[in-house]
Amino acid sequence: MAATEQPGTEPSQADGAALARGWLENSPFVSQLGIRIETMEPGRAVLSMPFSDALPTLGDVVHGGAISSLIDTGAAAAAWSGAEVPERPRAATIGITIDFLAPARGQGVTADARVVRRGGSGLCFCQVDATTDDGTHVAMALVTYQL
Amino acid sequence: MAATEQPGTEPSQADGAALARGWLENSPFVSQLGIRIETMEPGRAVLSMPFSDALPTLGDVVHGGAISSLIDTGAAAAAWSGAEVPERPRAATIGITIDFLAPARGQGVTADARVVRRGGSGLCFCQVDATTDDGTHVAMALVTYQL
Amino acid sequence: MAATEQPGTEPSQADGAALARGWLENSPFVSQLGIRIETMEPGRAVLSMPFSDALPTLGDVVHGGAISSLIDTGAAAAAWSGAEVPERPRAATIGITIDFLAPARGQGVTADARVVRRGGSGLCFCQVDATTDDGTHVAMALVTYQL
Amino acid sequence: MAATEQPGTEPSQADGAALARGWLENSPFVSQLGIRIETMEPGRAVLSMPFSDALPTLGDVVHGGAISSLIDTGAAAAAWSGAEVPERPRAATIGITIDFLAPARGQGVTADARVVRRGGSGLCFCQVDATTDDGTHVAMALVTYQL
Repeated sequence: MAATEQPGTEPSQADGAALARGWLENSPFVSQLGIRIETMEPGRAVLSMPFSDALPTLGDVVHGGAISSLIDTGAAAAAWSGAEVPERPRAATIGITIDFLAPARGQGVTADARVVRRGGSGLCFCQVDATTDDGTHVAMALVTYQL
Repeated sequence: MAATEQPGTEPSQADGAALARGWLENSPFVSQLGIRIETMEPGRAVLSMPFSDALPTLGDVVHGGAISSLIDTGAAAAAWSGAEVPERPRAATIGITIDFLAPARGQGVTADARVVRRGGSGLCFCQVDATTDDGTHVAMALVTYQL
Repeated sequence: MAATEQPGTEPSQADGAALARGWLENSPFVSQLGIRIETMEPGRAVLSMPFSDALPTLGDVVHGGAISSLIDTGAAAAAWSGAEVPERPRAATIGITIDFLAPARGQGVTADARVVRRGGSGLCFCQVDATTDDGTHVAMALVTYQL
Repeated sequence: MAATEQPGTEPSQADGAALARGWLENSPFVSQLGIRIETMEPGRAVLSMPFSDALPTLGDVVHGGAISSLIDTGAAAAAWSGAEVPERPRAATIGITIDFLAPARGQGVTADARVVRRGGSGLCFCQVDATTDDGTHVAMALVTYQL
């Protein structure tokens, strides 16, 4: 992951959110899924993925992989948001666990991702909930992200 | 998930693989990612996802969500393969855990999914490994799927 | 897991909590760890495990396995609490994921377990947080339990 | 976790296994469960936990927490085995996911833990399988351990 350029500014917590925004706007896979940022604040990101004909596994049921992608992306954005950006930013999801609670049928999905704890060596422990437009809780997840 | 039609045949283990093949060929999300079946045998499926410009998170690094989608799809195919198909097939991923071991850079990814145990009430416990074309082990996963 | 006897009563939601209490009081492993019930209400259980010299991995750091045991037990109690008890109760943890956020040093640990969703076929999706006596959040977990 | 003393020797890969052995022999919680080392080789550890009356959840079914503890301990031992020991060894389980495949009834359990990949910043990704004395595969797990 490459940082967005922030010429002439000192590294700061604002940079993390800017980096995440720049990344999301330029990511081919994120764009393909139609994922967009709703809210970003330190340690939290809310991302939405409107329903489209490209998302279902069959019929109108959104593929679990699309929901996983939204959750993973949300955790990364939350982890960057509020974090200081190093000179050469590198980051990766270390591990992800998702419980699928209900199908998402013909509706957009929103992921609310929060950093629960920032550990040593850049580890970020996140919790993510995914909900459809009508309020159905479709998935909950734990994501470990390394900045 | 809707079953492919198998008129005039009795339910059999062959049906499970046929259902999975029919589903994969007709799934909008699976098609969008370019996922295809390499091998199917009872309790096992090998699926490949060739590299394309739509898969990266940034640069040439395949998005973790694309790998998650491949793994999830592979586990579902393995679970169906060798399973009897009920009159009204319904199925869903219950839970998925993925450890990301290394980035997949500019290469296609293959997922090898095996059913480790078929439990009561249709639960299938699967193990999945994802490897790039050059043999890098990029992810390992446990998937619980319910037929 | 065997049910506590409830002769002469109809199955009811109260039975689930009673079954969980009876089980916890009679479980050799639960007793060995000193786990006790603080709160039980439908779909929720709070269990505590006071610090003792038998719990550390080394020094005064509570072994992750002891915390895992507390979390697993808490999820089971929450799943039973508020559930109807069948004639021949059988139950099992299907899967558990725990993120360890901080060490628990020389202190008791409390697990707060909530059922997030009761699915079909008796699946209970639970979320559990573990905290030490001084309020340190030491672990968060997702547990899938089958009644 | 404190290192066993190795006065007069240079840090080496042998130290990691020695440290793990010293830790297991002196751990109150590990001793309480009766866990012992069967095999240690670089990146692998096989640990056994003989059946005892203290392990069941009820009747003769070994508590999932006891199996979790065995798996967690096995992964830690595998991670240390073959690793260089720093001057001030610190380590912790970061995350653990366990799928429970079958109950362990009245039998000892053995965990076979392997390091699948040693990542940067000391992260060790491990895979663990737990089997009863009669060969029943009772659990499979992914463990992320940080040295």
